[in-house]
Amino acid sequence: MYYGGIEAGGTKFVCAVSDENFEIIEAISIPTTVPEVTMTKVFAFFDQYQLQAIGVGSFGPIDVNLDSDTYGYITSTPKKGWNNYNFVGAIKDKYNIPVAWTTDVNAAAYGEYRRGSAQQAKSCLYLTIGTGIGGGAILNEKIVEGFGHPEMGHILVRRHSADTFEGTCPYHGDCLEGLAAGPAIEQRLGKKGNMVAKDDPYWEQEAYYIAQALMTYTLILRPEKLILGGGVMKQQHLLPLIRQSFQALLNDYVAIPDLDSYIVTPGLVDHAGITGSILLAAEKAI
Amino acid sequence: MYYGGIEAGGTKFVCAVSDENFEIIEAISIPTTVPEVTMTKVFAFFDQYQLQAIGVGSFGPIDVNLDSDTYGYITSTPKKGWNNYNFVGAIKDKYNIPVAWTTDVNAAAYGEYRRGSAQQAKSCLYLTIGTGIGGGAILNEKIVEGFGHPEMGHILVRRHSADTFEGTCPYHGDCLEGLAAGPAIEQRLGKKGNMVAKDDPYWEQEAYYIAQALMTYTLILRPEKLILGGGVMKQQHLLPLIRQSFQALLNDYVAIPDLDSYIVTPGLVDHAGITGSILLAAEKAI
Repeated sequence: MYYGGIEAGGTKFVCAVSDENFEIIEAISIPTTVPEVTMTKVFAFFDQYQLQAIGVGSFGPIDVNLDSDTYGYITSTPKKGWNNYNFVGAIKDKYNIPVAWTTDVNAAAYGEYRRGSAQQAKSCLYLTIGTGIGGGAILNEKIVEGFGHPEMGHILVRRHSADTFEGTCPYHGDCLEGLAAGPAIEQRLGKKGNMVAKDDPYWEQEAYYIAQALMTYTLILRPEKLILGGGVMKQQHLLPLIRQSFQALLNDYVAIPDLDSYIVTPGLVDHAGITGSILLAAEKAI
Repeated sequence: MYYGGIEAGGTKFVCAVSDENFEIIEAISIPTTVPEVTMTKVFAFFDQYQLQAIGVGSFGPIDVNLDSDTYGYITSTPKKGWNNYNFVGAIKDKYNIPVAWTTDVNAAAYGEYRRGSAQQAKSCLYLTIGTGIGGGAILNEKIVEGFGHPEMGHILVRRHSADTFEGTCPYHGDCLEGLAAGPAIEQRLGKKGNMVAKDDPYWEQEAYYIAQALMTYTLILRPEKLILGGGVMKQQHLLPLIRQSFQALLNDYVAIPDLDSYIVTPGLVDHAGITGSILLAAEKAI
């Protein structure tokens, strides 16, 4: 019994096949070009197996509303060829098997919930801070979704008093993503985050923005774990600064688990998304 | 078959008994003094009926974590006598029937979801803007709760450039509740909100704070309805200002239902909380 998973990112697709115990048997990484090219390679890979179901955690925005005519589509992306692409339809046309469909960050949250840092918890939130900022959450054993999927990276935060950068978000200027994602760091400081010294005072600002967002997520969702992934979080000195800023902001207003076990990095390291996609495929196959 | 509901507020308790169709047969309002007095009246009322279950929507903070030793308690309230009060325990000791236990705003959200403005929707958020600000949400047919219940009123918002008021929140100063709840309006302007002229420029600031919060809730939860209740919302000129500010802030970033059907007032008017409490009692009785 095999399950397929696709972690569909803006720069690369990771495809994997697992056995019935969700152990990954084979995986490939494919550059994200245009659907005709990328999906041909995806199908060539999956053609080798008799799959029970496929789970997709996709870059967005995507349509996850089952009542919508465009359920299963990537919607308004600037990425050439993928705008209004019927992703689920393409897989169903090819294999006629159940397809689980959610965002990349929802899949990562689900992977961490079942097999990663939150496997002892009943709820969690996964936030990626990289080229963009996005979040997914699990509550009551289900992915948090309503009329559509969350876009947690675009919440408004207060500016740090020392920060005059105007922000990079084409929609909101200085929302969280506009101020704190990788491109914002690079534009503000003239170099990529991994080239910025560990003791650069900027990191306190970055931590302040992320901590504000974590306070907001805490007050609205009350998850048992906040899991921070993505390229920017590879700067390991950032995590303690975030915890410190978070504690100062929340000011013990609500009970949280022990801080060091509350704000953590992904237990599955870089495999949260693909693991979650496979687990969601298995859920869909039942 | 009878169900009991308690809407336990900081100034009054509303108790009601419904039949099996959730029609309220009898209801009373009791002032909230100390537990010995208030609960004696509650029990005297319910003693008249053979109840299947009781649902409580309580002022907070309360412990809703089933794994906790103090599940069913009101926790750290300054309200005399109610601090660490075992509310669920007191009811169970008296009647030995199932008790549904949640916050006042969660009960109101559930009432609106099943019988009010959101009865056609699969998800909703209820926000009360009164003496305090609090929110409850329904997603995937369940109340949004994790390690504890949400405290949506304490999220941070950006200050309006014309507002110099320091905020009233003892924990966060100028969080949403600290800037926009009833007492903040009164302290800032020297009179209660219902005495402030409809065309007072302050209302744009109030709308800006609430709209920011609604944008944040939208991006994190994606509910199908945002329902605004509480004393401050009795100022009917506020609703259009909130919608306008919300639209400007969100800037069409995510799809929402038609704005006028998205940001609304409670369909159950002032009975969302008691209705939700009764419906939650019935759920618990099954």
